Amino acid sequence: VKSKLPNIGQTIFTVMSQLAQNEKAINLSQGFPGFDCDSELQKLVSHFMQKGHNQYAPMSGMPKLREAIAEKTRKTLSINVDPDSEITVTSGATEALFAAITATVHAGDEVIVFEPAYDSYQPAIELSGGIPVFIPLTMPDFSIDWDLVKSKVSDKARLIIINTPHNPSGYVWTSDDLAQLAAIVEDKCIYILSDEVYEHIVFDGRKHLSLLSHPQLRKKSFVCSSFGKTFHITGWKIGYCIAPKALTVELRKVHQYLTFSTSTPMQLAIAEYLEEESRYLKLSAFYQQKRDLFCEGLKSTPFKFFPAQGSFFQLVEYGHLTDCSDLDLAVRLTKENKVASIPISVFYSGNQDPKMLRFCFAKRDEELLQALDRLQKAN
Amino acid sequence: VKSKLPNIGQTIFTVMSQLAQNEKAINLSQGFPGFDCDSELQKLVSHFMQKGHNQYAPMSGMPKLREAIAEKTRKTLSINVDPDSEITVTSGATEALFAAITATVHAGDEVIVFEPAYDSYQPAIELSGGIPVFIPLTMPDFSIDWDLVKSKVSDKARLIIINTPHNPSGYVWTSDDLAQLAAIVEDKCIYILSDEVYEHIVFDGRKHLSLLSHPQLRKKSFVCSSFGKTFHITGWKIGYCIAPKALTVELRKVHQYLTFSTSTPMQLAIAEYLEEESRYLKLSAFYQQKRDLFCEGLKSTPFKFFPAQGSFFQLVEYGHLTDCSDLDLAVRLTKENKVASIPISVFYSGNQDPKMLRFCFAKRDEELLQALDRLQKAN
Ligand SMILES: CSCCC(=O)C(=O)O
Ligand SMILES: CSCCC(=O)C(=O)O
Repeated sequence: VKSKLPNIGQTIFTVMSQLAQNEKAINLSQGFPGFDCDSELQKLVSHFMQKGHNQYAPMSGMPKLREAIAEKTRKTLSINVDPDSEITVTSGATEALFAAITATVHAGDEVIVFEPAYDSYQPAIELSGGIPVFIPLTMPDFSIDWDLVKSKVSDKARLIIINTPHNPSGYVWTSDDLAQLAAIVEDKCIYILSDEVYEHIVFDGRKHLSLLSHPQLRKKSFVCSSFGKTFHITGWKIGYCIAPKALTVELRKVHQYLTFSTSTPMQLAIAEYLEEESRYLKLSAFYQQKRDLFCEGLKSTPFKFFPAQGSFFQLVEYGHLTDCSDLDLAVRLTKENKVASIPISVFYSGNQDPKMLRFCFAKRDEELLQALDRLQKAN
Repeated sequence: VKSKLPNIGQTIFTVMSQLAQNEKAINLSQGFPGFDCDSELQKLVSHFMQKGHNQYAPMSGMPKLREAIAEKTRKTLSINVDPDSEITVTSGATEALFAAITATVHAGDEVIVFEPAYDSYQPAIELSGGIPVFIPLTMPDFSIDWDLVKSKVSDKARLIIINTPHNPSGYVWTSDDLAQLAAIVEDKCIYILSDEVYEHIVFDGRKHLSLLSHPQLRKKSFVCSSFGKTFHITGWKIGYCIAPKALTVELRKVHQYLTFSTSTPMQLAIAEYLEEESRYLKLSAFYQQKRDLFCEGLKSTPFKFFPAQGSFFQLVEYGHLTDCSDLDLAVRLTKENKVASIPISVFYSGNQDPKMLRFCFAKRDEELLQALDRLQKAN
C-alpha cells in the first residue's frame, strides 16, 4: 500500500495509555477524566433511548441540541448564533476539526499552525494537500510572537489554526492576541479554525475569549468544541462547530459524507443537561482545585513548572535533571515510577525537544496525590 | 468561500425526510426503521454507562466489540479475522467508507463506482483528488456487465467500490460476480471497498457473499458494515471495517484523526448483544415478510417492479405512467399522496433517469399498508 500518511504511526495517546496499562502505572498521559460523569446525564440517555429516539439524527444535529448550544453561547459570551445555519453537531471536536480543514484547504494552500500543536491538525492538512506552516510559541509561557506570525503569513495562507485554552501548555488567549490576529487577517481571504474544547476550564479569574467574541474574527472562524471535556464524557464523542452560514454550508458538505450524524439519544440527553448552566460554569473552579493540588505537590518533585492558565494539563520542565529525550523519560517514568505522561516533542513537527512532559490532572485527588508521591523520586 | 465540493447540496435523504415531515407524509424515503430497537440493547447501554464506561474507547474500537465482530464473522461466514489487526470500529459505516477511500485514493487515481450508487462515495473520492469512473449496472436487474468492467479498468485504477446487497436495487452479488472481480484485480494493485451494511438482509434463501468469503479478494478488500441496519439503531452510528493488516494500518491512520473513536458504552452494549446470534440471523426472515407484504400491495398500484433480492428497499418503475422526472414525481407523491420516496436519478453521476422510485419497507406493517393504499391512486 502506498501510504497517504507515510510518517504517521499510532498517536502518542494510544502509545502511552497502553504502556500505562501494561505497566500498571497511574495514567496521567491521555487527556480524559479519571472520574465518572453525572448519573443524571446517563439517565437522560436511557430516557431518550427508551422513548424511541434511536434512529438517524438530522445531519446538522438534533434541533434541541443546536438550540441548547446557541443558548449556552448567549449565556457565556452574550453572543447570538443561529442554531439552524451556524451550528453543526459532530462526532467529537476531532471530526469538527477534520471537517473544517477538509472543507477549506485546497491543494497547495498554506495553513498556519502554532506549535506545540495537538496532533490531529497536521494529518488533516496533509490529506487535503495543504502545506502546514509551523510557528513556534514563545518560551517559557507559550505566548504568541505576533511579529513572527506576520512574517510567516504569505499570500498562499488560507487557514490559521488556533487553540485556546492551549493543549498542552494551558496558555489562554488574551484580547491583545485576538486584536493582533484580527489585524493580520483583515482584508485577506484567510479563515480561522479555533479549537476551544477546554473553553470551560480557565483559572485564576481568567476569562475564555472565544473567537466568537470578536466581531471581525467571528465572520471568518470555525469554532470547534466538545462536551467530552466539559461533562466528563470523552467516550461519547459529541462535539460541535459554530461558524458563519457560508462556512457552515461548506463544513456540512464534508460532515454529511464523513459521518452524516452522531448519536441521537446522547445528543438529546446533552441538550436537556445543558439547561442548568451551573453544570458548565462550575467547571473552572472544579479543575482549579485540582491544578492547585497538583502544582502544590509538584513543588516536592525535582521538576520546574509554571501553573497552567487553563485546560486540564500541567507541563513540567526537566532539562536541569537529565539530558535524555522526553520520550525516553516518559517511558522510564511509566516503567520505574509508575506514572505515565506525554512527552512534548510529539507536539512539534521537527526535532524540537524542549525537555518537558505533560501531566493530565483530571483525576481523583487521591490518584493525583499518589502520582505526586511517586514523582518525588523522578530523575 | 471556494468550495471543495461545488456540486454538492443537501443529500436527497435530508431533502425528502424534511419534505415528508412538512407534508405529514409517510416517510418511505430515507432508510431507517420505523420501529424501535430491542429494549435489551438499550438496557445494556444504560448498564455500561452506569458501570462508568464513559471515557475514550481505544482508537481501533473496544476489544470486546472487535472480538464479537470476529465471532460473528466466524459464525456467519466461517472465516477467521484477527480482531486486533484486522477490525476497526468506526462512527457508522459512513466513516468507514470515507476513511477507506481517503486512505487509499491518491490524487489522479481512478476509482470504479457502479451506478446507481450510494451518494457518499463520490464526494469522498473527489476530496482525495481521485477520479470516479462510473459503470452503469445492467437493467432491469442491476446485474454487472463484466465485459464493460474489464474495458473500464485502466492502469490508473486504484480502488473498486462495490455494494452488496445493493442500495437502491437490492441486487445481491453471486459467486460468479466474485470470481469475475477476482479475475480482474488479479496481479493488479487495485483495492476493493465493499459496502455490506445490508449483509443480514437477503431474501428467498439467498446467501450474502461477503468479499471476505473469497480468499483472493479478501487480501485486497476493505469490508464495511454497521449495526444501524442490523439492530434498528441507525441513530447510534456504530460501524466497522474489516481489512487485512496492511490495509487496516492505513485505514486507522485516517480514522484516528477523523473521529479517533466512537461511543464507548454503545460499543460495549453491542458487543454483549451480539453474543446471541439469532439476533442477526433472524433479520432476513423479519424483512422478507415486510418485502412480501409490500410487494403484494404494490400489485394493486400502477407501478411495475421486480421484488428486491436484499436490503430493505424496493424499487418501482413508473415510465409507463408518466414522463415526468423522478424527482418531480417523488415530490408530487409526497405532497399529494402523502408517501415519500427517493428518486433514483440522484444515485447517478449524470442525467440518467430510469424513471424509478425507491421505497423503504423497514416500517411497521400498518404503516406499509397505509402507504400502499395511498399509492393505489398514484399517477
Ligand atoms: C483523542 S485522545 C487525546 C486526548 C487529548 O485531547 C489529549 O490527551 O491531548
Ligand atoms: C445517512 S441517511 C441515508 C440512509 C440510507 O442508507 C439510505 O436511505 O439509503
